[in-house]
Amino acid sequence: MAATPAWPPASTPRLFIDTPLGPESAPVIDGAPAHYLLNVMRLKVGDPLLLFDDRSGEWLASVAEAGRKVLTVRIERQVRARGTVPDLWLCFAPVKKARLDWIIEKATELGVARLQPVITERTIVERVKAERLAAQIVEACEQCGRTALPELAEPVKLPALLRDWPAGRALLFADEAGGTPLSVAAAPPPAAILTGPEGGFTDRERELLVACPAVRRIALGPRILRAETAAIAATGIWMAQHGDWAGD
Amino acid sequence: MAATPAWPPASTPRLFIDTPLGPESAPVIDGAPAHYLLNVMRLKVGDPLLLFDDRSGEWLASVAEAGRKVLTVRIERQVRARGTVPDLWLCFAPVKKARLDWIIEKATELGVARLQPVITERTIVERVKAERLAAQIVEACEQCGRTALPELAEPVKLPALLRDWPAGRALLFADEAGGTPLSVAAAPPPAAILTGPEGGFTDRERELLVACPAVRRIALGPRILRAETAAIAATGIWMAQHGDWAGD
Repeated sequence: MAATPAWPPASTPRLFIDTPLGPESAPVIDGAPAHYLLNVMRLKVGDPLLLFDDRSGEWLASVAEAGRKVLTVRIERQVRARGTVPDLWLCFAPVKKARLDWIIEKATELGVARLQPVITERTIVERVKAERLAAQIVEACEQCGRTALPELAEPVKLPALLRDWPAGRALLFADEAGGTPLSVAAAPPPAAILTGPEGGFTDRERELLVACPAVRRIALGPRILRAETAAIAATGIWMAQHGDWAGD
Repeated sequence: MAATPAWPPASTPRLFIDTPLGPESAPVIDGAPAHYLLNVMRLKVGDPLLLFDDRSGEWLASVAEAGRKVLTVRIERQVRARGTVPDLWLCFAPVKKARLDWIIEKATELGVARLQPVITERTIVERVKAERLAAQIVEACEQCGRTALPELAEPVKLPALLRDWPAGRALLFADEAGGTPLSVAAAPPPAAILTGPEGGFTDRERELLVACPAVRRIALGPRILRAETAAIAATGIWMAQHGDWAGD
């Protein structure tokens, strides 16, 4: 007995497109995404693809016209509405290139709602390239099945972050000096995690943090975690406990 | 009032050395570690360094002689006994180079006791370079403060892993088809986490896994996690809940 083949097949390309999608839209894809679809995935007229727009959800589409550098797409039907993610922000001091990429990619996969770069005294400011981070976010969303992109906030200095902190949102500060183990910290959404740069926070910054009413010091075990390990481990632990990982 | 300066300073190099250390030992360091200490860290006679041997613990030492390519070291005193880590194995299908490096580095930082490469049907076997993995392990241990290296096991095929699985050790299988959320799975040590290759496990492998009495299917949320994200998130969640992250 032959099984009914799944449609669209698992290998169907899945792409974010920054234009509103709907039953009547006929999006045109050019640039790097078109190159990828035409020359790497070798899509032909009639081939399926999945599109999401961070507005309406996810749509099954097919190639209507395939030029040398441009694709025109026909929308077939909506497959999912835009889904939300748990209300967790990751506030992180930017670190070295590959490790920063990793924070962005993994936090997006794990399901954060907002990525907030934080400039600290030991942060090298040149590291925040918004365009690069945005591209990482899109790629991770395409890969992990998200229909809602995390918000990428403008970099902000730590004192300003704390001064304008919204009431009611716990700020879980991964403190090298110790704190409540994250697995027992009561931190339901809305919440945020804060991790430092490679060199950690300065004493003055620690004082600012400890004095902020929203801040709760959390501990991430007895070993010294690299900045990106702390960010990703804390995000995963929070998601497992307070996020949307309970159902399956 | 001047604070007493901490000794040794936080910038003191910390090095694994594969020779037994004791009060009477006079280790000689050559090769790449000597190059690092002499030419990058620019250590001089009398400068402090920390050494650990994965046998006796960690020792404060100082440079006795600094040659052009070789250092001789004087042991000052033991600073820590060899510490243990929680009894968690990470069984992982090797993935692409940089992502494999991440698994090794992060699992070591997070505190796993054993790293077990698992060859699956969709694994590209050439990826397991024991020497490369061992170097990653050492570097991560030097950085995170571990005094006990995780054991790096020989790669084993999945059916053999399951056939010889030790009684009493739960094998938490990150199943894309779903399972018990890891945060509520009862999985005290001894335990193990199993993650697949980029392409996932085959249907035949899934059947083998589900039929194994030690296997418990776990879920890691509603998004599709990359292989290395699943490995690191699951390890962090387990450590926070069942490992040594409760004290601080």
